[in-house]
Amino acid sequence: MTQLSIVAFDRFTDIDVFMPWDLLFRAKAAGASDWTIKILGKSEYVTSVAGLRIPTHGRLEETATSDAVIFASGVGIADVLTDKAFLDALHLDEEKQLIGSMCAGAVILAEKGLLKGRRATTYPTYAKKLAEYEGVEVVDEAFVRNGRVATAGGCLAAQLLCGWITEELAGADLADAVIASILPVGQGCKAFSGWGDPAAAKAVAAAAPVRVAAE
Amino acid sequence: MTQLSIVAFDRFTDIDVFMPWDLLFRAKAAGASDWTIKILGKSEYVTSVAGLRIPTHGRLEETATSDAVIFASGVGIADVLTDKAFLDALHLDEEKQLIGSMCAGAVILAEKGLLKGRRATTYPTYAKKLAEYEGVEVVDEAFVRNGRVATAGGCLAAQLLCGWITEELAGADLADAVIASILPVGQGCKAFSGWGDPAAAKAVAAAAPVRVAAE
Repeated sequence: MTQLSIVAFDRFTDIDVFMPWDLLFRAKAAGASDWTIKILGKSEYVTSVAGLRIPTHGRLEETATSDAVIFASGVGIADVLTDKAFLDALHLDEEKQLIGSMCAGAVILAEKGLLKGRRATTYPTYAKKLAEYEGVEVVDEAFVRNGRVATAGGCLAAQLLCGWITEELAGADLADAVIASILPVGQGCKAFSGWGDPAAAKAVAAAAPVRVAAE
Repeated sequence: MTQLSIVAFDRFTDIDVFMPWDLLFRAKAAGASDWTIKILGKSEYVTSVAGLRIPTHGRLEETATSDAVIFASGVGIADVLTDKAFLDALHLDEEKQLIGSMCAGAVILAEKGLLKGRRATTYPTYAKKLAEYEGVEVVDEAFVRNGRVATAGGCLAAQLLCGWITEELAGADLADAVIASILPVGQGCKAFSGWGDPAAAKAVAAAAPVRVAAE
């Protein structure tokens, strides 16, 4: 079993949780069948900035046993940063895990000491805050990887973050197929012809090696 | 009050509901303050194909009083097409409303007679099904508009569909600002500097007139 966790909190940015959730599910459905994908939160439910209340699948402590952890973004980050219990419940180890952030989530990585001496990206409104952490070099890039720790900036950069995680854990063919499956029609979109059939997904990927720009 | 509704059903494709939900909320937060955005469903909750159970904000009959209606997509469409009560509960009038679909949702528009004699797009796996409706010309395009009825194909084409609706109901500046706010950092991303302040949103749009390709 491989566990992939998305850490959410109240007033999360909807798309920064739901896009990774959707993309990782696609990878699971198309081939990575041993994946368990969970949204982790402090309590049983979290509510997005747009007001959508969703159930979580586990508590923050489950980060300890996750193979990959993605930190969501949102204006609620301000509350997270003053919530010692929230931060203490996060157990991260870049030797054993892939760790990534969407937008403002990079500040949580900095808070946990994972960005020291490293380049990192975030949403523009959080660049100043992120730069306050000692040794963090904030750059205007969509996706910045340092070994097994990565930051993504701008909601649509979720494709790069999830593509990287999928490639690392299940191979580039599957990652390509997942990204191709959400592109606009006529702009590289290739539907999965066989959800749940890894061979079919691989064939799709081979036919359309589409990858989002940058990296 | 302007009501924008997203019609969902069990086994909906996550991103095809949540991306429009997020984009329309951004428009409301940044200027279209009289908008009410609702996810409509047959019952109090709907569950996505990836297993996320979310509350709905109203029943399908509210399509009648909506200013814009977006139909979501997903493998659950097969059940919708055999559910006469679901289809009968949809009250659509292109003289009074903007009506759009994500991916497989185009089949609902066809079922309701809105695509006859028109070009339309859908997700590749539903192209054959859509072409079975008399007078529908299925094309490989991201976004196809016929007056006040539009179809979008491929999840990321939600940007075009929501951009169109936002432009029609609240102007091109706001639509541009919304799309720019989700682009990857370094690839046109411009954060809203003033959520809830239309002037600020307009300034952002003027500074970064980024629009997704096609149309």
